[in-house]
Amino acid sequence: MDLEGIRERLLQDSLEAFLVSKGENIRYLSGFTGSSAFILVGHGTSFFITDPRYEEQASQEVSSGFDLVVLRPGERLSDFIKAKGWTSLAVEDSLSLAQYHALQEGLEGKVTLKVWKGVVEMMRRVKEPWEVEEIKGAVALAQDAYYSVGEMVRPGTVERDLALELEFTMRRRGAEGVAFPFIVASGPRSAMPHGEASERVMEEGDLVVLDFGAKWKGYHSDMTRTFVLGFWKDWAREIYRVVLEAQEAALEAIRPGVMARDVDAVARGIIEEAGYGEYFGHGLGHGVGLEIHEAPALAPTSRDVLEVGVVFTVEPGIYIPGKGGVRIEDLVYLGDHGPELLTDLPKEVMD
Amino acid sequence: MDLEGIRERLLQDSLEAFLVSKGENIRYLSGFTGSSAFILVGHGTSFFITDPRYEEQASQEVSSGFDLVVLRPGERLSDFIKAKGWTSLAVEDSLSLAQYHALQEGLEGKVTLKVWKGVVEMMRRVKEPWEVEEIKGAVALAQDAYYSVGEMVRPGTVERDLALELEFTMRRRGAEGVAFPFIVASGPRSAMPHGEASERVMEEGDLVVLDFGAKWKGYHSDMTRTFVLGFWKDWAREIYRVVLEAQEAALEAIRPGVMARDVDAVARGIIEEAGYGEYFGHGLGHGVGLEIHEAPALAPTSRDVLEVGVVFTVEPGIYIPGKGGVRIEDLVYLGDHGPELLTDLPKEVMD
Repeated sequence: MDLEGIRERLLQDSLEAFLVSKGENIRYLSGFTGSSAFILVGHGTSFFITDPRYEEQASQEVSSGFDLVVLRPGERLSDFIKAKGWTSLAVEDSLSLAQYHALQEGLEGKVTLKVWKGVVEMMRRVKEPWEVEEIKGAVALAQDAYYSVGEMVRPGTVERDLALELEFTMRRRGAEGVAFPFIVASGPRSAMPHGEASERVMEEGDLVVLDFGAKWKGYHSDMTRTFVLGFWKDWAREIYRVVLEAQEAALEAIRPGVMARDVDAVARGIIEEAGYGEYFGHGLGHGVGLEIHEAPALAPTSRDVLEVGVVFTVEPGIYIPGKGGVRIEDLVYLGDHGPELLTDLPKEVMD
Repeated sequence: MDLEGIRERLLQDSLEAFLVSKGENIRYLSGFTGSSAFILVGHGTSFFITDPRYEEQASQEVSSGFDLVVLRPGERLSDFIKAKGWTSLAVEDSLSLAQYHALQEGLEGKVTLKVWKGVVEMMRRVKEPWEVEEIKGAVALAQDAYYSVGEMVRPGTVERDLALELEFTMRRRGAEGVAFPFIVASGPRSAMPHGEASERVMEEGDLVVLDFGAKWKGYHSDMTRTFVLGFWKDWAREIYRVVLEAQEAALEAIRPGVMARDVDAVARGIIEEAGYGEYFGHGLGHGVGLEIHEAPALAPTSRDVLEVGVVFTVEPGIYIPGKGGVRIEDLVYLGDHGPELLTDLPKEVMD
């Protein structure tokens, strides 16, 4: 249980308790899927705090290590903290200034606050086996939906209609939602790395970048494929070939203990070598879990190490303004013996 | 233009500039619909700041009063602020501690920060005529979808299927999204004021609370109707009658200058008088605009006045644990001559 890691950190910082307020972190530590809750971890104590609306849900979901506290109308979190007699408390830096000031006011100067940065997020970086299973569930929902709507990837389809159909298909099959607003970028729009689906109608000869994923039991999936509608123009086939080569070389370079920036450099080197370096303006990938973007970061300036247990994307791209772009993205789990691809959609040039 | 109001406030607080970071406030002041932007308002200057991804969109959308600034990779907002020579700056309390600390660090102690609370939100309370038109657009999308899926409100329908169909119908017709996760609460679940659609199958004799709305050009709609499936039980017909009476009396009590809490008291009084006071555990309503919950608050402890131009919900309810509940909600615009109902779905007892 990760609470011991938190208690060690409390000792190091000479603090008495840690207030967890960020939803994903609360879910990670306790299993609670609702909103409106807090966790307080002290030395030898751990409280799960919610309000009457979530009492029933919390009693079913929250793991047994927590004492369940229900704040009735008029009872405040700050009063509960003061009643514990603590004089120092760590809080998360995801708190808004408004929330922080309200807490400070309620504590009336009796408790010193210290702001912690990314403590639970660091724990969430390495996934437990059950977490990898949930991510696989999110992958399956997205991939199944992708195959169902495949025939919509053709001239005449409106980008937004494709995005809606893909979303509705995965949600009808049980997805909790989309992992992020889908990118459906066709023709010249494919040169926009973040081109959310628009009213554009796809045309013969377009490149179409489709970047999508599902949410399942709180966990996300994330994948991208690029299509050509009808026929390949020479420049498009060329950049597709380079991106695919870069992605496959990066996947080969992944092993436990490697620096994330070194894997980024493998893909970036191939793209630069081919003369497209200026057209690959983003990092190679990012961790995926309870958040769609989390640690580790695969980018030139990243100091993250790829440890056993991390789940992340590998998504090089080339985007030529005014013409179009290509991105190929897979989701990877790094096991003891090397990387395991969680996504398995075809990516060979189809023509 | 509301920037003058901000400059007056700067003068009062002896500050040189105001940094706007909250998305809805940026949209309100500038018209920009993207994410990732800032506004800086000084005496005699107003800057709209974004990054290269949004340069094109900003140049199309941002109103002419702003100087457009594009921060290239490596250029930081804090450097731009320091280069202006300002020594004091107001920021919004919606900033996270992480964002606030990063800004502080970047400013290297050269600029004193003061945290402002709800300054733009106060301006947004009273709607311009064009804003009311967008809200009417969001109402039309939601109401049209409601009529389209009406036949799904019957025994055998899964709550979540109804919610999905309602959402997909309004999005296919152009809604930007849902205003909030829809509440479809049937049978005993109707006693949960926030019962998001579940896997429950609706049954003969159920009460079904349907609380929904659309998002259109950034603005929201919000409405609730309660149905009975097949036949009315006496207790259900009784609470429906009381809620409807309370809602209609509250609507009658609305006029420019009235205290929001007094309107709440009208509805609450009728429900209490009928013996159901303990089963109406939430406020009577809330403002609606660029956010689904904004000022004014209609609640017993509210100090808000209902001024000409506000748009808000009127939504009394009675929720009897273990049995079921009823809520009836309309959206109201308060004009010069009194309230105008923006929603017009039928609410008479249908049997």
